[in-house]
Amino acid sequence: MALEIERKFLVVSDAYKKEAFKNLKIIQGFLSSVPERTVRVRIMGDLGYLTVKGICNASGASRYEWEKEIPVNEAKDLLKICEPGVIDKSRYLVKSGIHTFEVDEFYAENKGLVVAEIELSSEEEMFTKPEWLGNEVTGITKYYNSALVNNPYVNW
Amino acid sequence: MALEIERKFLVVSDAYKKEAFKNLKIIQGFLSSVPERTVRVRIMGDLGYLTVKGICNASGASRYEWEKEIPVNEAKDLLKICEPGVIDKSRYLVKSGIHTFEVDEFYAENKGLVVAEIELSSEEEMFTKPEWLGNEVTGITKYYNSALVNNPYVNW
Repeated sequence: MALEIERKFLVVSDAYKKEAFKNLKIIQGFLSSVPERTVRVRIMGDLGYLTVKGICNASGASRYEWEKEIPVNEAKDLLKICEPGVIDKSRYLVKSGIHTFEVDEFYAENKGLVVAEIELSSEEEMFTKPEWLGNEVTGITKYYNSALVNNPYVNW
Repeated sequence: MALEIERKFLVVSDAYKKEAFKNLKIIQGFLSSVPERTVRVRIMGDLGYLTVKGICNASGASRYEWEKEIPVNEAKDLLKICEPGVIDKSRYLVKSGIHTFEVDEFYAENKGLVVAEIELSSEEEMFTKPEWLGNEVTGITKYYNSALVNNPYVNW
């Protein structure tokens, strides 16, 4: 089981779109959005995934993660029994120094929300900050995709 | 996604143990025990499984089921982040006519509870009733393994 260190930031301009080397459509739902153990069904491009995440420390930056690729037709079936509310977004991959930011632009009930995530090998690891990067929101639960299902950005 | 027709019964004697052709130890926990979409982690013998079940009609006998075999060490890790309370039981497989009953004898906080399940191709399909078979409890939610986690037999 991998320990995943992720830091999450707001995004203050759409300059990231020009810098992106890849752009993927993502549809995802949750079989469970309980923060202690989320179970996510995702279709990304033409692949399906089932992902379990468990929080294992107080700051929220370290989470256990387990993921399996699954056939996209099985992912579609599982989405049908997910909790009401599905996340619809585009993901832009942007290089920054030796790291890659994943910038998610949300649609539908979360339209207007754009967040950038970077995966690091420790909570202290340095990284290059792009100009379009805004305030850090790591560990703020309302920005979790699992929380956006129940309390979308349009309600904030 | 397979449609699973299961009928569940109480067991009135331990005669099933002599008739069993196989006996397996099962440890399982739930990433989600919400009845509409349970997510189960199971170790059965030396194999691991992740299983999603969704209820799709009012009687509770028809449920969508999705299952993947996973490495047993991954199942052990996932059990660590499951909801508090783990189900510990032995499963006896017993032939009855053309069908096979799965008889589960529970331990720990569910000690004393024994239930038998049979999988059928329709809700109307006939089957041979063994002498040790008691009242039907199909669809009674307190007998769901996912419910036994939160309200074990010892509390009934």
